[in-house]
Amino acid sequence: MTDLVERVLQGDVRATARLIRDIDDRTPETQEYLKELFPHTGRAFVLGITGSPGVGKSTLTDRLVAHIRERGLSVGILAVDPTSPFTGGAILGDRVRMQRHSTDENVFIRSMATRGHFGGLTQSTRGAMMVLDAMGKDIIILETVGVGQDEVDIARTADTTVITMVPGLGDEIQAIKAGILEIGDLFVVNKADREGADKTVQDLLTMLELGQATDSGRRDWIPRVLKTVAVRGEGIEALWSEIEAHREFLAQGQSEYYQSLNRRKHKLELIDLVKQSVVDSVLNKLEKTGDLEEYVDEFMARKADPYTLSEKILAKVFT
Amino acid sequence: MTDLVERVLQGDVRATARLIRDIDDRTPETQEYLKELFPHTGRAFVLGITGSPGVGKSTLTDRLVAHIRERGLSVGILAVDPTSPFTGGAILGDRVRMQRHSTDENVFIRSMATRGHFGGLTQSTRGAMMVLDAMGKDIIILETVGVGQDEVDIARTADTTVITMVPGLGDEIQAIKAGILEIGDLFVVNKADREGADKTVQDLLTMLELGQATDSGRRDWIPRVLKTVAVRGEGIEALWSEIEAHREFLAQGQSEYYQSLNRRKHKLELIDLVKQSVVDSVLNKLEKTGDLEEYVDEFMARKADPYTLSEKILAKVFT
Repeated sequence: MTDLVERVLQGDVRATARLIRDIDDRTPETQEYLKELFPHTGRAFVLGITGSPGVGKSTLTDRLVAHIRERGLSVGILAVDPTSPFTGGAILGDRVRMQRHSTDENVFIRSMATRGHFGGLTQSTRGAMMVLDAMGKDIIILETVGVGQDEVDIARTADTTVITMVPGLGDEIQAIKAGILEIGDLFVVNKADREGADKTVQDLLTMLELGQATDSGRRDWIPRVLKTVAVRGEGIEALWSEIEAHREFLAQGQSEYYQSLNRRKHKLELIDLVKQSVVDSVLNKLEKTGDLEEYVDEFMARKADPYTLSEKILAKVFT
Repeated sequence: MTDLVERVLQGDVRATARLIRDIDDRTPETQEYLKELFPHTGRAFVLGITGSPGVGKSTLTDRLVAHIRERGLSVGILAVDPTSPFTGGAILGDRVRMQRHSTDENVFIRSMATRGHFGGLTQSTRGAMMVLDAMGKDIIILETVGVGQDEVDIARTADTTVITMVPGLGDEIQAIKAGILEIGDLFVVNKADREGADKTVQDLLTMLELGQATDSGRRDWIPRVLKTVAVRGEGIEALWSEIEAHREFLAQGQSEYYQSLNRRKHKLELIDLVKQSVVDSVLNKLEKTGDLEEYVDEFMARKADPYTLSEKILAKVFT
């Protein structure tokens, strides 16, 4: 076993941080490390916290972490933000988040940022989850922004997914719910001391009922809707109880629906990896032959359409 | 030339609608149609309108369309929404949008929905843009939600990108700006009759100045910030003037920065196509051999890690 892997298994924070950074940077050897870690995973409970910017996800996470720590459980947090090199948002985010729990060695926080490849963020987040699982974290919190396919894919990897909203979104809820409503196990209306909280709860319940009808019995967990005021710590205990209730529900886990969901999850992860590997290998070959630029010239001069050029490139790569 | 392609070139709305639907469904033969259409493209001006749900993108687009039509130009609109089969949002959206301009044969509106593959949405949106370009639309408006890598990628394909915001987002601006700020050529603070509009304008200007500093002279277009009240049609004319100013700036287009940007755009499109093709071919082969399910079984039983399994699958597919 490599030294780095051994240190991660012993819970070494620096080694874990380094490995996650390497995963985020897509360093080639990380895959070998993850293979070694795999037999030590499968124990952690993954809690997804999803919602638009500004709904208070970080504060909610912060309060939940305090609650979880009081119960003596260790926590790893992965924050997936739509960010860019332009702002360096992820790094700044880490610093702000770290403050409160920075002296607690049982809380590990990292932001995932890399978006280099399509699907790359999903891939590196899954890898980072494996690392936190292997290092012995009891709970992994996956904080994501609920718009964009990457985010939805990532949210899907959680065991329990909490969708966070705020009162008074009105029509905007329509847009937010689209991709995200069907993956929520629990719904939180945060900042519930604001006007319109009860209406938002009511709207959500109506939508969920509609969804339930469409789903025609495929689900046997009825998503709950809760109110919180995270900045004041209100509703956090009730939220944690519901999270535990869902976890127990999963543990019974004999329902057909959840078995097929679990199968689909594993299948997707495998397919995503296959896709990523094949794309990586093609791009590597393309870089070695070095004639991509000539094809770009042809395309820019409108001498050939991109579809024909892509076929030519593939033919060349695979001979 | 196939009959369908010929009809699209003649501006036939039904043929165009069918082809775009096929592209969105990723029907295999669409690629051949797009090859035939390519020589007839390259004429349309692509305007991107990006912003979070609820900022009034659709209303803004609607007003701009009226304005463009008054100038005798034809318009094609592609709305890219984060949607799902659960809500059928895209189809509903079309109906609502269509109402106003539904009797105007020079306005063509479609929503893109497919997210089946990773990168799939970018691919099919690019295809649909080619179709609208080939059918002779003067202006193509690309309406996207500005969070998520797919949306950023799509926004990047526009000639001129308008980022839309609303007053009083406060901290949330920080999150929104991340991926999106650097791709904006024009910034619109819509609903500018609301409290805090001037502060939002000021905040944007400050951020843009910061960005400019970081960019250290790589840009030679200074993004403008405008106020609109789209529901009342206020600020639309000024916005259109700025869009035309940016278009003229691009037409001069001799700056090194824009030449490199243009090259990067073409390169990305080509690489995305290559990626998509190779992934499609691998998934097809995998489906034919039919033993993906066995690998999933192994993974679920934790007999092997997903990385090793993915390597096995690829080795099998490529022999």
